[in-house]
Amino acid sequence: MHAYRSHTCAALTAANVGETVRLSGWVHRVRDHGGVLFIDLRDHYGITQVLCDGDSPAFADLEKVRSEWCIRIDGTVKARAADLVNPKLPTGEIEVYVRELEVLGASEELPLMVFGDQEYPEETRLRYRYLDLRREKMQANMTLRSDVVASMRKRMWDREFREYQTPIITASSPEGARDFLVPSRLHPGKFYALPQAPQQFKQLMMVSGFDKYFQIAPCFRDEDPRADRSPTDFYQLDLEMSFVTQQDVFDTIQPVLQGVFEEFGGGRKVDTDWEQISYKDAAKWYGTDKPDLRNPIKMQDCSEHFRGSGFAIFASLLENEGTEVRAIPAPTGGSRKFCDRMNKFAQAEGLPGMGYIFWRKQSADSIAQERGITVKDVNALIKSGEIVLGNEAAGPLAKNIGPERTEAIRQQLGLDVGDAAFFLGGKPKAFESVAGRARTVIGDELGLTDTNRFAFAWIVDFPIYEADEETGKIDFEHNPFSMPQGGMDALNGNPLDVLGYQYDLACNGYELVSGAIRNHRPEIMFKAFEIAGYGKDEVEKRFGGMVNAFQFGAPPHGGCAAGIDRIVMLLADTANIREVIMFPMNQRAEDLMMSAPSEPMTDQLMELGLRLIPQD
Amino acid sequence: MHAYRSHTCAALTAANVGETVRLSGWVHRVRDHGGVLFIDLRDHYGITQVLCDGDSPAFADLEKVRSEWCIRIDGTVKARAADLVNPKLPTGEIEVYVRELEVLGASEELPLMVFGDQEYPEETRLRYRYLDLRREKMQANMTLRSDVVASMRKRMWDREFREYQTPIITASSPEGARDFLVPSRLHPGKFYALPQAPQQFKQLMMVSGFDKYFQIAPCFRDEDPRADRSPTDFYQLDLEMSFVTQQDVFDTIQPVLQGVFEEFGGGRKVDTDWEQISYKDAAKWYGTDKPDLRNPIKMQDCSEHFRGSGFAIFASLLENEGTEVRAIPAPTGGSRKFCDRMNKFAQAEGLPGMGYIFWRKQSADSIAQERGITVKDVNALIKSGEIVLGNEAAGPLAKNIGPERTEAIRQQLGLDVGDAAFFLGGKPKAFESVAGRARTVIGDELGLTDTNRFAFAWIVDFPIYEADEETGKIDFEHNPFSMPQGGMDALNGNPLDVLGYQYDLACNGYELVSGAIRNHRPEIMFKAFEIAGYGKDEVEKRFGGMVNAFQFGAPPHGGCAAGIDRIVMLLADTANIREVIMFPMNQRAEDLMMSAPSEPMTDQLMELGLRLIPQD
Repeated sequence: MHAYRSHTCAALTAANVGETVRLSGWVHRVRDHGGVLFIDLRDHYGITQVLCDGDSPAFADLEKVRSEWCIRIDGTVKARAADLVNPKLPTGEIEVYVRELEVLGASEELPLMVFGDQEYPEETRLRYRYLDLRREKMQANMTLRSDVVASMRKRMWDREFREYQTPIITASSPEGARDFLVPSRLHPGKFYALPQAPQQFKQLMMVSGFDKYFQIAPCFRDEDPRADRSPTDFYQLDLEMSFVTQQDVFDTIQPVLQGVFEEFGGGRKVDTDWEQISYKDAAKWYGTDKPDLRNPIKMQDCSEHFRGSGFAIFASLLENEGTEVRAIPAPTGGSRKFCDRMNKFAQAEGLPGMGYIFWRKQSADSIAQERGITVKDVNALIKSGEIVLGNEAAGPLAKNIGPERTEAIRQQLGLDVGDAAFFLGGKPKAFESVAGRARTVIGDELGLTDTNRFAFAWIVDFPIYEADEETGKIDFEHNPFSMPQGGMDALNGNPLDVLGYQYDLACNGYELVSGAIRNHRPEIMFKAFEIAGYGKDEVEKRFGGMVNAFQFGAPPHGGCAAGIDRIVMLLADTANIREVIMFPMNQRAEDLMMSAPSEPMTDQLMELGLRLIPQD
Repeated sequence: MHAYRSHTCAALTAANVGETVRLSGWVHRVRDHGGVLFIDLRDHYGITQVLCDGDSPAFADLEKVRSEWCIRIDGTVKARAADLVNPKLPTGEIEVYVRELEVLGASEELPLMVFGDQEYPEETRLRYRYLDLRREKMQANMTLRSDVVASMRKRMWDREFREYQTPIITASSPEGARDFLVPSRLHPGKFYALPQAPQQFKQLMMVSGFDKYFQIAPCFRDEDPRADRSPTDFYQLDLEMSFVTQQDVFDTIQPVLQGVFEEFGGGRKVDTDWEQISYKDAAKWYGTDKPDLRNPIKMQDCSEHFRGSGFAIFASLLENEGTEVRAIPAPTGGSRKFCDRMNKFAQAEGLPGMGYIFWRKQSADSIAQERGITVKDVNALIKSGEIVLGNEAAGPLAKNIGPERTEAIRQQLGLDVGDAAFFLGGKPKAFESVAGRARTVIGDELGLTDTNRFAFAWIVDFPIYEADEETGKIDFEHNPFSMPQGGMDALNGNPLDVLGYQYDLACNGYELVSGAIRNHRPEIMFKAFEIAGYGKDEVEKRFGGMVNAFQFGAPPHGGCAAGIDRIVMLLADTANIREVIMFPMNQRAEDLMMSAPSEPMTDQLMELGLRLIPQD
């Protein structure tokens, strides 16, 4: 028999009854039923119930065994009595009577229980990650992550992509975030950098004639931590193709990601029709470039209804150029209580409040007031069918603008009795992000957002440039390497009108993918940088490797990168990225288990030609 | 039609004749046949011949096109005349008559030609890697590497292993080589390190209950460069399993690697029976722990034949304890010329020389001399059949020890007329590595080494400790984390006798794999370190993460790591690791294309709390 096991802890069934078996695993739970010891023995694959009584030579030793000891047992498979069969367990039909025991690894007292659902502070979990990872949920999350990555690879291979590895110790490339630096020993005073993404290398590969590249690529950014972001490194499904248009990239990655979500989404609905929404429309409709489309609310411009209206705040605001009043329709939100709560949300977000209107069924009271007759008369007219109760707009805003305008708004937004609408006014840039958050809260609170779905949309037509609000200085809005739509001609016009072949994929409110058709023409690239204030010398200094390469027959190319940690987060239904990383840093970018970072040895610093600046 | 191509440059055959097609690629070669331009258009997939004459509207533009310009052409597929068909090319039956041309990317004058076999200095190749990579051999090498890695993954998945990623920014773990350090910005004065290997993490995963782990893992060592080693990072197929013996690890990895060599070996023979050779025997037989077993030469101890013999050097040397005379048999090496050349090799290696004997057919002369009769008489006796010419040992050594001893040596080594043997004496440690190199040279020069084969052997039973030659201090010979054979009992005996469950895989003279069954018992680990002079405190300080984890029910586990760069090197039949890496560093650990390493910006250093020590 094998030294450690004849079967895993998930393998034995009624078919094995009578066999002598050997199992190894961890003591998940011990129960003492008056002279009979029951142990749930657990390994990576499952749990098998083993037992022992005083007749077994192993009994005395088994009595000493505690939770999470690693043991090996020999025994005989027995059928459980019919009323003791556990149908939830693959091994639930049997148990193993223990005749021999070997302790493979004893355990000290546990700082963290594996069995049960007790919650522990994250610091404890990370310090004893090896125990935390034994828990069922963490085993499932890590297995999921591994399977997702494997599935991505298979799907990319099926599309005739090859995976190529790019350097991890390389040059500093200011792509926006902060680099991690690596001091060089052979060249003291000089530093390598860890790549923020393999972007330059993948583009160089296209110049090298490799046609379809992908990589499950580690990326490194020295960023301040956030719940959905690792403070040091993260993984991307990175891909690049030559001789392609934007649509080719979409047609390549959609089946890969859709397939992954269908395979691992646990039955949640997965959109198959991925809408393309312009950056401008996304801002207008959803207040964000990563909209959650599970939420059906689409905002609309309602400026015309307020221009010159009795609601002075909006009316006077609309006299300034570039202003707008935007409506967030809230179907089923038509109660004062709900509207007031949302108004408070807006105040908490730093706004003076959100105007609102809600629609209710007309009351006899209000008709009486409107017509100047008694309520009794109204009731009689209702009874006789001469009056049919319609809808009625309520709320302070409605009062100010009057019934015609409120009705026009209602019709534009397609709302009815029981619904509401919220209004924000000003320059869109100033209110759009709050409006987007309000849309989310409204969708969630009213249960409009379908939580059982993965909703995807491509956000396209990003502007290449943006102007600084204060100085008016033009800078890149997004990635400086994207091809401007219209090429050189477009760059000769107003920079703020130039759109790029640049795109993001939004899913459930997260940006899952980002990419572009690249600017592969040196003359267009230099011009694009010039507009943002970077001279030829500086471009050559900062992106020399890539810019030089483009002088030697560069092909048109493009691609994208999908955030793996975020995809697994969505699939595992968690909002904390550390739940889907095997050995994550804590929020202060420390590894408490391995004690990183730590103080270097003096001779290490000497070799690197470095000295520490004393910190206060 | 697609914006860039209807077909790749490898797709068109006689079946497409008459079709209008669109191709994109690079101008591989231009030929002007008196008014007809022929261009070999190349992409990642192949080459298609396109042509144009003055009747085409594209002619004037096509005339301007130069080598390595990236172009797109539209044209009509034509059958080639029977005598112009190129059977070597998949597209050799056709050519494309160009009607339209678009220059996608022009090229400056080339510092390195893609077409043809011209050699360039490595610095040029690395500086213009994107051009170097367009060459056929480099395209093939990179494709091979990608396919090898993909095949490894599939084979591991088939064996129910999952790939899990371990941290890249982590703690310094002194495993022998020098760490790359990464200064922390959030914790100025503290440093992370890049992992030399994921060893501690993979062992922690086993403690976490993950049963079968693998990873195509980047490893980082700040080492001085060598032809078969990258100066910064390299990739391993890293694996670890719980509840296994050494043989289980062998049974897991052999089919994976054997399969990869069979799949990508280009028809070269692949050993299927992987011998297990003890570290001690490997040193004795081959003078190295990574023997090239394609070479059939096996060294032997010949001390007894020299003890008290007339060859004073060996005879007196053998009077010292621990000395030995070892023979390198050299079948077919039996000529004075060859033996003298090998003797010179030994002198070049710093030895006084190698003694040798070679065997030739007896001559009438030597029999005459031996028997004290005339040559004429001898010839008569040969004619009458009374004398049969046997073999005769020649060389200075043979003279000194006489015919009986040389004959005994010949019989022990199984040699015959036409063969030779070389002899080295002294303490084995002092001559073994030279002997090993001599064995290699002899095998190569005599054509004994089968270059059309991949020969594998497991080297097992490595000693855990070695004693410093001068001080006698005991230290770890290899990896300090291996389980000693015999466990705690063995550690209570003579440390130099303790063998480990530790193994290497040798292939064609390279170490391809290294691994061990790990020491998972804290008490045995502390004892093992104590013998090497490391106190409990120091062990906890240096390997705290792992040692702490072992207190909480650690399973027995083991694994290995296979060097991917070396495997691809062997398959690609090159001895230079840079031929199988997409963007390698040069031998001074510089990336000339991306300008790494480079000087940091002052504010970067400030943020990290670092100052440079001025270098002289």
